[in-house]
Amino acid sequence: MAHNKQTNIDLTNKAVNNIRILSAAMVEKAKSGHPGGAMGGADFIHILYSEFLKFNPSDPTWIHRDRFFMDAGHMSPMLYSILTLQGKYDMEELRNFRQWGSLTPGHPEVDILRGVENTSGPLGQGHAMAVGAAIVERFLCSKFGEWMAHKTYAFISDGGIQEEVSQGAGRIAGFLGLSNLIMFYDANKIQLSTPVSEVTDEDTKAKYEAWGWNVIEVDGHDHVQIRKALTSANEETKKPTLIIGHTIIGKGAVDEDGNPFEGKTSLHGQPLSGAGASFEKTIENLGGDINDPFQVFPEVASYYDGVNKCMAEYVSNKQHFQANWEMEKPELAQKLRDFFEMKTIEKVDFSSIAQKSGAPTRAASSLVLSTFADEIENMIVASADLSNSDKTDGFLKKTTVMSRDNHGGRFLQVGVSELTMACLANGMALHGGVIPVVGTFFVFSDYMKPAYRLSALMELPVKFVWTHDAFRVGEDGPTHQPVEHEAQIRLMEKLQNHKGKNSMLALRPSDAEETTVAWEMALKNTETPSALILSRQNIKSLPTQNGSSRYEEAKGANQGGYIVLDSDQPDVILIGSGSEVSTLVGGAELLKEYKVRVVAIPSEGLFKIQPPSYQDKVLPNDIPKFGLTAGLPSTLRELVGDKGQVWGLNHFGHSAPAGVLDEKFGFTAENVAKEVRSFLKSLA
Amino acid sequence: MAHNKQTNIDLTNKAVNNIRILSAAMVEKAKSGHPGGAMGGADFIHILYSEFLKFNPSDPTWIHRDRFFMDAGHMSPMLYSILTLQGKYDMEELRNFRQWGSLTPGHPEVDILRGVENTSGPLGQGHAMAVGAAIVERFLCSKFGEWMAHKTYAFISDGGIQEEVSQGAGRIAGFLGLSNLIMFYDANKIQLSTPVSEVTDEDTKAKYEAWGWNVIEVDGHDHVQIRKALTSANEETKKPTLIIGHTIIGKGAVDEDGNPFEGKTSLHGQPLSGAGASFEKTIENLGGDINDPFQVFPEVASYYDGVNKCMAEYVSNKQHFQANWEMEKPELAQKLRDFFEMKTIEKVDFSSIAQKSGAPTRAASSLVLSTFADEIENMIVASADLSNSDKTDGFLKKTTVMSRDNHGGRFLQVGVSELTMACLANGMALHGGVIPVVGTFFVFSDYMKPAYRLSALMELPVKFVWTHDAFRVGEDGPTHQPVEHEAQIRLMEKLQNHKGKNSMLALRPSDAEETTVAWEMALKNTETPSALILSRQNIKSLPTQNGSSRYEEAKGANQGGYIVLDSDQPDVILIGSGSEVSTLVGGAELLKEYKVRVVAIPSEGLFKIQPPSYQDKVLPNDIPKFGLTAGLPSTLRELVGDKGQVWGLNHFGHSAPAGVLDEKFGFTAENVAKEVRSFLKSLA
Repeated sequence: MAHNKQTNIDLTNKAVNNIRILSAAMVEKAKSGHPGGAMGGADFIHILYSEFLKFNPSDPTWIHRDRFFMDAGHMSPMLYSILTLQGKYDMEELRNFRQWGSLTPGHPEVDILRGVENTSGPLGQGHAMAVGAAIVERFLCSKFGEWMAHKTYAFISDGGIQEEVSQGAGRIAGFLGLSNLIMFYDANKIQLSTPVSEVTDEDTKAKYEAWGWNVIEVDGHDHVQIRKALTSANEETKKPTLIIGHTIIGKGAVDEDGNPFEGKTSLHGQPLSGAGASFEKTIENLGGDINDPFQVFPEVASYYDGVNKCMAEYVSNKQHFQANWEMEKPELAQKLRDFFEMKTIEKVDFSSIAQKSGAPTRAASSLVLSTFADEIENMIVASADLSNSDKTDGFLKKTTVMSRDNHGGRFLQVGVSELTMACLANGMALHGGVIPVVGTFFVFSDYMKPAYRLSALMELPVKFVWTHDAFRVGEDGPTHQPVEHEAQIRLMEKLQNHKGKNSMLALRPSDAEETTVAWEMALKNTETPSALILSRQNIKSLPTQNGSSRYEEAKGANQGGYIVLDSDQPDVILIGSGSEVSTLVGGAELLKEYKVRVVAIPSEGLFKIQPPSYQDKVLPNDIPKFGLTAGLPSTLRELVGDKGQVWGLNHFGHSAPAGVLDEKFGFTAENVAKEVRSFLKSLA
Repeated sequence: MAHNKQTNIDLTNKAVNNIRILSAAMVEKAKSGHPGGAMGGADFIHILYSEFLKFNPSDPTWIHRDRFFMDAGHMSPMLYSILTLQGKYDMEELRNFRQWGSLTPGHPEVDILRGVENTSGPLGQGHAMAVGAAIVERFLCSKFGEWMAHKTYAFISDGGIQEEVSQGAGRIAGFLGLSNLIMFYDANKIQLSTPVSEVTDEDTKAKYEAWGWNVIEVDGHDHVQIRKALTSANEETKKPTLIIGHTIIGKGAVDEDGNPFEGKTSLHGQPLSGAGASFEKTIENLGGDINDPFQVFPEVASYYDGVNKCMAEYVSNKQHFQANWEMEKPELAQKLRDFFEMKTIEKVDFSSIAQKSGAPTRAASSLVLSTFADEIENMIVASADLSNSDKTDGFLKKTTVMSRDNHGGRFLQVGVSELTMACLANGMALHGGVIPVVGTFFVFSDYMKPAYRLSALMELPVKFVWTHDAFRVGEDGPTHQPVEHEAQIRLMEKLQNHKGKNSMLALRPSDAEETTVAWEMALKNTETPSALILSRQNIKSLPTQNGSSRYEEAKGANQGGYIVLDSDQPDVILIGSGSEVSTLVGGAELLKEYKVRVVAIPSEGLFKIQPPSYQDKVLPNDIPKFGLTAGLPSTLRELVGDKGQVWGLNHFGHSAPAGVLDEKFGFTAENVAKEVRSFLKSLA
């Protein structure tokens, strides 16, 4: 299997030690970081990258490349080191490890051009992304043929194995029979604060076997065993493979006297010199140059040149095959391009989606998803066991469920595991070629926060469908009723990503028709994650103002907020999002003695980046403003201003029918009219 | 083992069917809810409650009772029904299931007087709480003797088994050898939207065995098998027991023609009549009265009277034993009372804790925890593999690590599983007798949101220690740097619980001395969860104003916010929390041309419920206000008002040394001075 025929024991050792030297040197120079794991995992990573991993030396974005997902982000020195041997980083960059503006941050941040396939650091998420990517590979092969097959590798450590999310990832990979997934578990028996034995004694092999994995145990420093395991994993056709590599943390480190200083907790998260080892002696021990450890040994460099040449040949063969395939199957070839270029989203004619006036926005979303099922062949929709409630079943009804025997199914029943679902979606988006959509109740978005934060950080266009958006969940009670959640998601909207854009687009549409617009915005937003926050209950569709259709008027959502009902020189502006807007319209109808404007703000974050002139036009400074939100009153506080008033919910919900809660909590047209009157009188 | 010798097959079936009838009737009347699971689990729950569960019929709070933790909260009808047989609910309450103001909400809400040991609904959390409670039981027995032993039962469904958190719960229970924990898994093969087979085919038995559990499989409708399993589980001395009960959802339901209508997905979450079954025929089939299904059969009532009598005798014997034990060991008896009445918190003399001026607040917290280790024998501190970083090791160093062989250890290394840790803490607090404290990085509080929301809802005094509170995590980069998190936690502060109090107390102390005060507040807050948000880096301690000690002045934190530096009739007020306060003081020193007041707001939520006169005194309306926050600027927006200005962080962090980030992001005294000058000029 070796990419390069020159492989021999001495050279392999030299390359492995080169990784150890660079890793130790990076951490030492930065005065912070994690050398131990990187030194322990060096054997595996070298063999993987030089003998198994398929990549295109001249195009890191090549869609047929094997994917390598890092879970143990703190082992970034190992990743940067191996990528340096591959030629993707230079020594200056390694010397700048963990420094301002460097390309070598403390934890890897997705940078496909440099070979970093995912952002990692929060343990467990990285390998769950790998499962998502492996799903996409199987999905695409089912459409385009096995010639497209590639492997997805993941690298996980003791911490990642412990994270709760590894259960969802392990279970689903086994259930779907993802034989294209190969995970190396660097079992070095040391975690950040203790030996692993102080924390767990689970039989990890048995656990993964219970999930349907092929499990192989190796000495993680034995190159023959590693090669054999990788070869066997590559030949597996039914199950994902877990290679448990028993390694020694800080392998190769020595103390002042040159005696081995390995396997110690102190080596986990600080420079060798701070951990009780000798940095200098260790570099010497590994054959490095203590005056300048930032070097690639010439023979290692030459070996990796060979690997690159070998890979160039592999790619050339594959491209040759692909060219023939494209000639034979031009339509399929076009579809493949469309999938990866996201051209599929252009096929949808949103104006032709006939929403039912007054429908719940979750039902309106279901109708849109049903259209997507017809038009967008590369959309994969998942639900965490709520498809018939979150109404992703609009998509499901026109597609099939993904299973071990049907990798082409476009609906993924992930079960009750929300965080896993969001991580899978991130991995799908990272792989490319598909548009992932995930659905659950809004209150359970809490479980997904760690993952949607990473979606935002990685700028992935995952679509989150969050239904049952307020206390109108009703009888299910406070555990199921979101209150603080809209305010919470608006925080992510206001947080900018590294491109200076809102890190997320969160839309809470006002009625069925605006839901179509919101979905259009979400679909076309390929730069950040999008969220749709949708109602369980019916919402009376908003009135039209100027004779055009409600759908046309709802396009105002593209500015984040817009006037839905107006008066000349209004006395008061009523502001809300979601179903509150129709309640405000109802209130406005009762407020006959006042001239009222009603403004819908489906996305506060988007509205706040509109030109000030537009914002001032919609919400002029000098007109009193009244906000209505089924969330915490802080949700609209900024929009109504100091002198404005917000009628919101400042407490947990209750179990009772939704209509009763509307009455009790004051979310009726009558109460709006009453509160607005009293608000305006207080200003007089 | 039967509590009541009258047990016979007919009577058992009658009682089980009584539970089915009541459950189906509740859901039918409420027109919403989950009948199927309740009907399927009825056999087990009846046998457990009538033959195994130890309780005190005259005092539901009796500390020696067995605990029953519901995981599958949607199966509330089953729980309310069995508790009705026990005499804890009446028929009027069952008829009011899921209605406004009823004691029978859609998902169970903790109500120990009614026999509801925990709030459930968000799947997985309930049984993780059970693990926490079982830990406490073992902990207390190690201190007070095995005479105090009781069992902790948990009831879980397919969804709970799938939730990620079940991995942490399963692993830790096995690792600690919690033989006092007995979990029934109602495996009915149907989940909300699909058969379980569409979601998973894991070997659950093998998985739990991999975690070190004793696993028994039974037919969940076979009373002999259930009894045998419970008997054997009660005799187990080394491992937690999982009883996998294969059940049929909607057991006993029939259609219009009286034919069995069982095992169908439709039976999961709607009234029988909506699911395709016949409610009337089902009630008939089960022997109920269709005109008034809300009845307890006389012979069942009489049987449960017998159970209560039997339990009264059990309790009386135990109390007799306890009285002797108390006489023999008066000091230990006093300690036991102190543990449960939380008298232990009164032992700490906070004024004698000698903080090191200028220390990081995490180190200051460590010192306080070290004192707690000496004084508070019933405090259990846990960390998610970060004890040497979150500095809970101040406690660890004076205690021992809890393990299978040392249940009396007061430090719990939970490994990398933050959500599990928070759920365990909730369960510990629910059990009573201990004070749970959990530590991790602030950014990872995201993983715990679903659990701390339940801490807040259940009003549990769990203490959350969240360190590395801002971008000054430095080199670890954006995945580890909280930005939106303080704003997020302040949302929970503003959300009121059902008592009308802030649902959480979140404190971000300004310096080492204020950390002592914050810990004092957190410890004495026995009514809601508390969070301490602490710095990684050194913080220059604040100056004193009126000759008293900094610790004395820091007591202003008890009002949520207070003046730390003042001038006569200030020109501007600078506001912040955490390390930003000392930066503001530094800025104030440079702003020699202005009269400056600096205000620390360690808890915005607490400050906002102070008398308006106090709030006005600290932050008078007419003085310009400038806020500094290392979080999103929305954090202080409300406090500075419309005309104020906030210097915050509106973007993700970067990997670089903390000092560099302070410069780049403008968190220096110099930049504060510059920004305040420009702010004040803009007002002039």
